[in-house]
Amino acid sequence: MDQIIQIQTELLQSTINRVYKRVPFYKNIMDSACLSPEDIKSIEDLKKFPFTTREVLSENYPYGLFAVPLRDIVRIHTLRGINGTPVVIGYTRQDVEHRVMLSRRFLEACSVSSDDIVQICLDPGMSVVGQDLKEGAEAIGALVIPPDPISTEARIRILVDFKTTTLITTPSYGDYLLSKIKEEGPPIAALSLKRMIVVGEAVDVSTRAKWMEEFGIDTRAGYGITEVMGPGMAYECEALSGLHMALDHFIAEIIDPDTGENLDIGEEGELVVTTITTRANPLIRFRTGDITKIIQKPCPCGQTLWRLAPVKSRSDDMISIRGVKIGEKIIEYFLKEQLGKVPSYCLKVRKDRPLERLELKIAMSPEIFTGSLPELHVFLRQLEEAFQEKVGITCSISPGEEKSLQELLQRAKGHILIE
Amino acid sequence: MDQIIQIQTELLQSTINRVYKRVPFYKNIMDSACLSPEDIKSIEDLKKFPFTTREVLSENYPYGLFAVPLRDIVRIHTLRGINGTPVVIGYTRQDVEHRVMLSRRFLEACSVSSDDIVQICLDPGMSVVGQDLKEGAEAIGALVIPPDPISTEARIRILVDFKTTTLITTPSYGDYLLSKIKEEGPPIAALSLKRMIVVGEAVDVSTRAKWMEEFGIDTRAGYGITEVMGPGMAYECEALSGLHMALDHFIAEIIDPDTGENLDIGEEGELVVTTITTRANPLIRFRTGDITKIIQKPCPCGQTLWRLAPVKSRSDDMISIRGVKIGEKIIEYFLKEQLGKVPSYCLKVRKDRPLERLELKIAMSPEIFTGSLPELHVFLRQLEEAFQEKVGITCSISPGEEKSLQELLQRAKGHILIE
Repeated sequence: MDQIIQIQTELLQSTINRVYKRVPFYKNIMDSACLSPEDIKSIEDLKKFPFTTREVLSENYPYGLFAVPLRDIVRIHTLRGINGTPVVIGYTRQDVEHRVMLSRRFLEACSVSSDDIVQICLDPGMSVVGQDLKEGAEAIGALVIPPDPISTEARIRILVDFKTTTLITTPSYGDYLLSKIKEEGPPIAALSLKRMIVVGEAVDVSTRAKWMEEFGIDTRAGYGITEVMGPGMAYECEALSGLHMALDHFIAEIIDPDTGENLDIGEEGELVVTTITTRANPLIRFRTGDITKIIQKPCPCGQTLWRLAPVKSRSDDMISIRGVKIGEKIIEYFLKEQLGKVPSYCLKVRKDRPLERLELKIAMSPEIFTGSLPELHVFLRQLEEAFQEKVGITCSISPGEEKSLQELLQRAKGHILIE
Repeated sequence: MDQIIQIQTELLQSTINRVYKRVPFYKNIMDSACLSPEDIKSIEDLKKFPFTTREVLSENYPYGLFAVPLRDIVRIHTLRGINGTPVVIGYTRQDVEHRVMLSRRFLEACSVSSDDIVQICLDPGMSVVGQDLKEGAEAIGALVIPPDPISTEARIRILVDFKTTTLITTPSYGDYLLSKIKEEGPPIAALSLKRMIVVGEAVDVSTRAKWMEEFGIDTRAGYGITEVMGPGMAYECEALSGLHMALDHFIAEIIDPDTGENLDIGEEGELVVTTITTRANPLIRFRTGDITKIIQKPCPCGQTLWRLAPVKSRSDDMISIRGVKIGEKIIEYFLKEQLGKVPSYCLKVRKDRPLERLELKIAMSPEIFTGSLPELHVFLRQLEEAFQEKVGITCSISPGEEKSLQELLQRAKGHILIE
């Protein structure tokens, strides 16, 4: 561990030097805190920095956080922001190579080899992650079936006929696909599936135990956030004993989400990440919003570096729907923009229905709508279209009476009810 | 032209040799026609072969048309078939490299250089095409903004703030995006857009003239089909005088779609394509369904090889909705599967509404549905969900009375009404 801390320290110093020189946002906060790059002598000194939040990313749109000139950027990924302002993340050629290398490392840790047939089933909302994992699997020399928009039925046929050994998907879609197979066939003996690699959402112990029991397949989870370098940030090895983090690319801290204070190793709190190899868009103390802890004891696989515990919740109201994050702020920004005000509403997340999992009920006051019943139908359709376009997830929108909405909200956390 | 015919002949002979040895489907049809590989002495001899249709692709699922063993395949793309059976196309490493090279050539013919900022806006239904063009643009060294699922509004902000010079999209989405800019801003002077590269659908002369007049941007069209090597099959040069075809990779014929007879050069008919460099999935005389003609006179750009005229229609009922093909067979297979029978129906294609362009009206007989009005709402929602999942396009489904449906159908071509 000492050696990795030495590497991290050197990379951190060089990152801090670069952002001080090249990113006005970081120079300003360092100057205001009377911090100069020379003050960063150890990883501990990172604590002197304020956090970089998702809001900071939106506020510095379009390229306020870029540490290289635009001519050195070869790719720009765009994400939905919380309030309509997109978030953009730039990549140099080296950054793109790192993304692929990290994905490759993740898949190799899952024992994927050139003998494997890797089928990727991810929603368009996770296209960047799918792309990284495709490139990582191709680099290993596996046969790759990338995410094309075909039906679940067709995906199952391909799974059988092409003898897929490795399925990469979200836990919810993976569970849906396996339950379809269980109900409608083919017989489990017809499958060549050895493992499911899940990304985008947390997978619970009972679900993976069920998959193992019913299908005899291993589950491996990965962890990553779209804002930094894709899916290969941390991943499970065969010991299934926490997620090995790519410590040569990231420094992790765990903080109390309310006070921002650093917590002791082993305590549960919000993961904060600092990139130390990223060229185009380095982030210092980025608050991920994910609640986890650091596991210090060596992994049964032999590695002695610490690992992350699986993420079990978030410090904000955001939830992940098939890998796309959504929360109250996003919904309310949407309603305000579309209806001019935010009426009473409840967002129901139907965990039992993977294909259309969001239901938004809104109170229909005369301020919002006064037309006839057929007009209401059209109105709701248009609202659904706008939701799809602006928020990026299919959602069924229906009118609710004030009273029944209040009843729903009693069972909900905030405005979000998970069923 | 003589030289290219020489190259084509040699590559054709080697392709025919390979498929005779390795693809039972082609061996069988050659044997039944008493054809041996040695009989193919010139391109003219291709006429002795029967056609390969889209149905043949489905019938030979999963790998009946593969000319290499599965271990040499590095990627498999999956397409929706007409009747629920998927179509799969395999690629060797060399095939993947050819795809990227052809996309690169296409973009270079459109004058895209390492100074360009290329923003790709394509639906998830065209993810493979988007991927190819992304890789082609990256190979040129351009800055690429790949297709992420964000709102049109956010795309326009990025177009302005990142000074996009080249927009790659479908003509309908491109038109929608430009009309949004015209209505809601930014001022046209804020744009750095030089060209729009359109794929997936034909673009008409008046639309491109409008874009030029209102925005001062060039339009370049490309042509490709998903079944063979992606978007770089043919493309316009700066002379805008027909599409240069990659004649070192494909042999083209024009046939009468009704009789299957070859037509003379310059006559309008269905394009039939034979691949001559493809390793994994070579196709002999593949019927594209696209109606076009060959232009023999040299291009004003200086190239003396012939070109393809822009595709103006199809020989079957298939239409392209934002790059995804749909036709009566697909709709009827869907209705039969979901409702047990095919009721009277009419598919309205709303060319004025890019975000939800399909409306399917179906006659609600008591055999199909007998419930209450609220139950009907749920029933239609579920049908729409299934349509999205199975056909792959968002469609608004509503009940129609038999009489009004018949009136609609009088204005339609078959069951499809384009408005």
